[in-house]
Amino acid sequence: MTQYKMDKLDKSILHALMDNARVPYAELAKKFDVSAGTIHVRVEKMKQANIITGTKVSINEKKLGYDVCCFIGINLKNAKDYPDSIKRLQALEEVVEAYYTTGNYSIFIKVVTRSIDHLQDVLINKIQTIDAIQSTETLISLQNPINRDVTP
Amino acid sequence: MTQYKMDKLDKSILHALMDNARVPYAELAKKFDVSAGTIHVRVEKMKQANIITGTKVSINEKKLGYDVCCFIGINLKNAKDYPDSIKRLQALEEVVEAYYTTGNYSIFIKVVTRSIDHLQDVLINKIQTIDAIQSTETLISLQNPINRDVTP
Amino acid sequence: MTQYKMDKLDKSILHALMDNARVPYAELAKKFDVSAGTIHVRVEKMKQANIITGTKVSINEKKLGYDVCCFIGINLKNAKDYPDSIKRLQALEEVVEAYYTTGNYSIFIKVVTRSIDHLQDVLINKIQTIDAIQSTETLISLQNPINRDVTP
Amino acid sequence: MTQYKMDKLDKSILHALMDNARVPYAELAKKFDVSAGTIHVRVEKMKQANIITGTKVSINEKKLGYDVCCFIGINLKNAKDYPDSIKRLQALEEVVEAYYTTGNYSIFIKVVTRSIDHLQDVLINKIQTIDAIQSTETLISLQNPINRDVTP
Amino acid sequence: MTQYKMDKLDKSILHALMDNARVPYAELAKKFDVSAGTIHVRVEKMKQANIITGTKVSINEKKLGYDVCCFIGINLKNAKDYPDSIKRLQALEEVVEAYYTTGNYSIFIKVVTRSIDHLQDVLINKIQTIDAIQSTETLISLQNPINRDVTP
Amino acid sequence: MTQYKMDKLDKSILHALMDNARVPYAELAKKFDVSAGTIHVRVEKMKQANIITGTKVSINEKKLGYDVCCFIGINLKNAKDYPDSIKRLQALEEVVEAYYTTGNYSIFIKVVTRSIDHLQDVLINKIQTIDAIQSTETLISLQNPINRDVTP
Amino acid sequence: MTQYKMDKLDKSILHALMDNARVPYAELAKKFDVSAGTIHVRVEKMKQANIITGTKVSINEKKLGYDVCCFIGINLKNAKDYPDSIKRLQALEEVVEAYYTTGNYSIFIKVVTRSIDHLQDVLINKIQTIDAIQSTETLISLQNPINRDVTP
Amino acid sequence: MTQYKMDKLDKSILHALMDNARVPYAELAKKFDVSAGTIHVRVEKMKQANIITGTKVSINEKKLGYDVCCFIGINLKNAKDYPDSIKRLQALEEVVEAYYTTGNYSIFIKVVTRSIDHLQDVLINKIQTIDAIQSTETLISLQNPINRDVTP
Repeated sequence: MTQYKMDKLDKSILHALMDNARVPYAELAKKFDVSAGTIHVRVEKMKQANIITGTKVSINEKKLGYDVCCFIGINLKNAKDYPDSIKRLQALEEVVEAYYTTGNYSIFIKVVTRSIDHLQDVLINKIQTIDAIQSTETLISLQNPINRDVTP
Repeated sequence: MTQYKMDKLDKSILHALMDNARVPYAELAKKFDVSAGTIHVRVEKMKQANIITGTKVSINEKKLGYDVCCFIGINLKNAKDYPDSIKRLQALEEVVEAYYTTGNYSIFIKVVTRSIDHLQDVLINKIQTIDAIQSTETLISLQNPINRDVTP
Repeated sequence: MTQYKMDKLDKSILHALMDNARVPYAELAKKFDVSAGTIHVRVEKMKQANIITGTKVSINEKKLGYDVCCFIGINLKNAKDYPDSIKRLQALEEVVEAYYTTGNYSIFIKVVTRSIDHLQDVLINKIQTIDAIQSTETLISLQNPINRDVTP
Repeated sequence: MTQYKMDKLDKSILHALMDNARVPYAELAKKFDVSAGTIHVRVEKMKQANIITGTKVSINEKKLGYDVCCFIGINLKNAKDYPDSIKRLQALEEVVEAYYTTGNYSIFIKVVTRSIDHLQDVLINKIQTIDAIQSTETLISLQNPINRDVTP
Repeated sequence: MTQYKMDKLDKSILHALMDNARVPYAELAKKFDVSAGTIHVRVEKMKQANIITGTKVSINEKKLGYDVCCFIGINLKNAKDYPDSIKRLQALEEVVEAYYTTGNYSIFIKVVTRSIDHLQDVLINKIQTIDAIQSTETLISLQNPINRDVTP
Repeated sequence: MTQYKMDKLDKSILHALMDNARVPYAELAKKFDVSAGTIHVRVEKMKQANIITGTKVSINEKKLGYDVCCFIGINLKNAKDYPDSIKRLQALEEVVEAYYTTGNYSIFIKVVTRSIDHLQDVLINKIQTIDAIQSTETLISLQNPINRDVTP
Repeated sequence: MTQYKMDKLDKSILHALMDNARVPYAELAKKFDVSAGTIHVRVEKMKQANIITGTKVSINEKKLGYDVCCFIGINLKNAKDYPDSIKRLQALEEVVEAYYTTGNYSIFIKVVTRSIDHLQDVLINKIQTIDAIQSTETLISLQNPINRDVTP
Repeated sequence: MTQYKMDKLDKSILHALMDNARVPYAELAKKFDVSAGTIHVRVEKMKQANIITGTKVSINEKKLGYDVCCFIGINLKNAKDYPDSIKRLQALEEVVEAYYTTGNYSIFIKVVTRSIDHLQDVLINKIQTIDAIQSTETLISLQNPINRDVTP
């Protein structure tokens, strides 16, 4: 499967759409000094190459009431319980990301909760009731000064 | 500043738009058994409440050539160098997230690179040339089985 | 349940009573330049708001023969044994505080004993006989230069 | 300096006063089957022996708006900066306890703040601006199931 | 069993052969100012003393497609499972070195894989399915600036 | 630069030569049921493709008097001192491997010495005199049950 | 049981005997400017007070062939297995000291062996076959610059 | 320098003297079924071989008032400060042993003090005033169930 080779124009268009998916093609055309048709063609190609996979609204988690964001390192009792534990975590809506990493945690997850009390509930009554888990270590994010997408 | 109180319908609409921002209001109206006008009103209210902050295209990082994703814990020589170090990291486009956490790292960042060699370059020639940094510890993500947004 | 909004006078009165609960209201009235009746009203309001919850004598632990104070981090064999282990620790009078924290200990407790030998006895013959405990790590306090209440 | 030898009655009286300093001596006398005069004599003796050091109102920290309680392990750049660092911490009202322990932290403190944001402010703008500090590690208390005084 | 006492000439010859096993003895003889016969005798003696154990071609791992080299610290559930675990690791061709060390890992291994994805497969589907393993910690080599034999 | 695509025969030949570089081509030809000429052609191709990079004698380190093999994790005072420190280590013949890894050591090296006393000398009088080094941690290999090349 | 209160002379005599138990009392008498009888009386008193518990020859461990001295931190699978594990270690003559400490090891021991190979044998075939042991961490002493008795 | 080869009789004699240096040779002769002259000859040989280095009284540290025994791991700011730091520690009589080990501490010492307060004084006012020390970690011995000499 050959990969679509993006040029500088593709990257500029993609960059703009990653900020605002509703920007009119005419505006992009003017900005990059090409025709609107060219913009259209390029976007279609990036969609076909699966580089652009969809469009979604951006949300403000704090406005949704999610005040606490944290990373939790999970240690399992047996390394081989990894696949089953992932399935159990998948069922918890507060778990928004999960990673299998080279570090010494068996699983590394990102959890978003409404409050410290909600976090306590998720830890004690949900995550730690999973049989395979020996222990957890939680890093609460106190500040998130950088949060952006990769540069195309 | 009073917060907009979302009801079940708001949450369902938001959920649908977080998946696909281009879904027609008529389709949502039919799905939730209300009028398209209601959908429109609700979306506007969520925009005014700053819950919906925009629309953006979703991308596939691997297709863009970013094969390696990792977390890096940074230890500073002096705790007070935190603000300056964040500014230096901001200038590195490979650093896509940065956190100040309760754990024992001074700064915890997420880095996306094209390859292991690119990661080595970013670490040795960019991150570790920052004077304030004493050491780094890198957790490379080998698998990312959960990756989703919070549930509204 | 609305929370009682304390003003500067409330805080000053509370501050004084946290030092010495037996200070006469007349003395406080003179100090803060209000009537003794005002002092009385404010104290009652803080009691009704559950801000002031009672009065107790202060003691000197060393004079009671408690020479050793330490923090003990407990690691459990299974994260889910947390609630039962707390019950077992509750039964040990030497355990004066217990916390569930974000760190890597399953439980974090404060223990006060009469001597190093008493601490050894508590660890080996009481705490470590609890089945669910895998290991403990003890931090003995050698000096306690700051020990005070929160500032109202 | 000889220490006052407490008997069973002393301990029972002290226990009662540690719960409620305002309990009438007559009530204690009845409860322990002695005269009110005996209660009075014993309390005086415990005061003279400096076992009872005062009386203070008990407060509810949450009602005062202090929602976050945490332990912070501090690592200094030089072990010999310990005394000066304690002086600097003493000036921060959010630091309610400080310990010099046998563990690997240079200083171990307890901090009480109004919120996660307040904690972030205390860490970044107060604690970590102290020159001597290399790094900190924060354990946020999510639950405090045991909190009591030593048994006399 | 007495050990063959190497002199300076032996060491020089060995050094040369460790670089290139096919160098003609005549060339070595000229370089070290002795007869080719002497070279021959010395090489034979080092073979008989088991100092020289064979000859092998040197390969370039990257050219063979092995892009990822890492060290993995393995923690076992029971220290006594060490011998069995070694047998299981022996069966995995990606495990090229294994050590029993004084550090806190139960086993320390070196693993070579074709890619990050291959490493993930080896970890999740091969190494971590070994029952005796509690956890692993992986150090990926990003650069290998020194790689040489001991100096005879 | 296109990579030479090895087939099953190439791999078998390479495997044999990695064990013993002096095995006659006739013997290999017979073993793999091809002509000696074919063996010759394949070996030449692997040399031109830089897969086979040379031939060297194998040695027995113990017979050379190197009894102690260890890994040393080095922590630097400043992450940016990495390149200079590598140069300093390069000058020490006991350092046979050095890695820049994702773990929390600044540099990870393999050291071979004649004895425990020799190791002590290398650590105190050579490695630790390098100004940039803050500390080291040494893992002595007590057993090396697996030691082999990658499988072609 | 009252403790014998040592004066300056007692301490000087004890100090001398801790160096050399065979020094004649006459010599000590001359050195400390008292009568030999006084020396005799004081030594008897220190024996009766159990301060002096015996006399033993000093040995040179290296001359006995014990070349390797190390500390081993042992982690048990269950904290409550401590007493049984001590009994098992008692049966191993290479274990010369064992401690129950405040640190995170379940047991901390000192082991003396004839060689690195002997240490490997003790670890793999003796210590780690004890069922209750999860893992060990070994610190080999490379130098022992201070080794003396307490000052009386 | 050839080493004296001890036989079974030598070892038995040495063993007896390591327990009690004052046991009469006649008693040993009877016990081991040899002449007293033989005992004498063997002891002399072990003295000449430097296996027996002297005779000293054994003491009871607790009776001397030394109640607290601990191990302290010291981390230096610079690895190269090791020799100077040892000199500074040598001057502190509470430091009875010091080791340079393979672990991650720069120096590992054993300290004996009269009390917890004495230990605090030694740490804060003596050890930690040494400029080169970054931090210390103290393991207090709560129990010392094994304490014996090597077996000859």
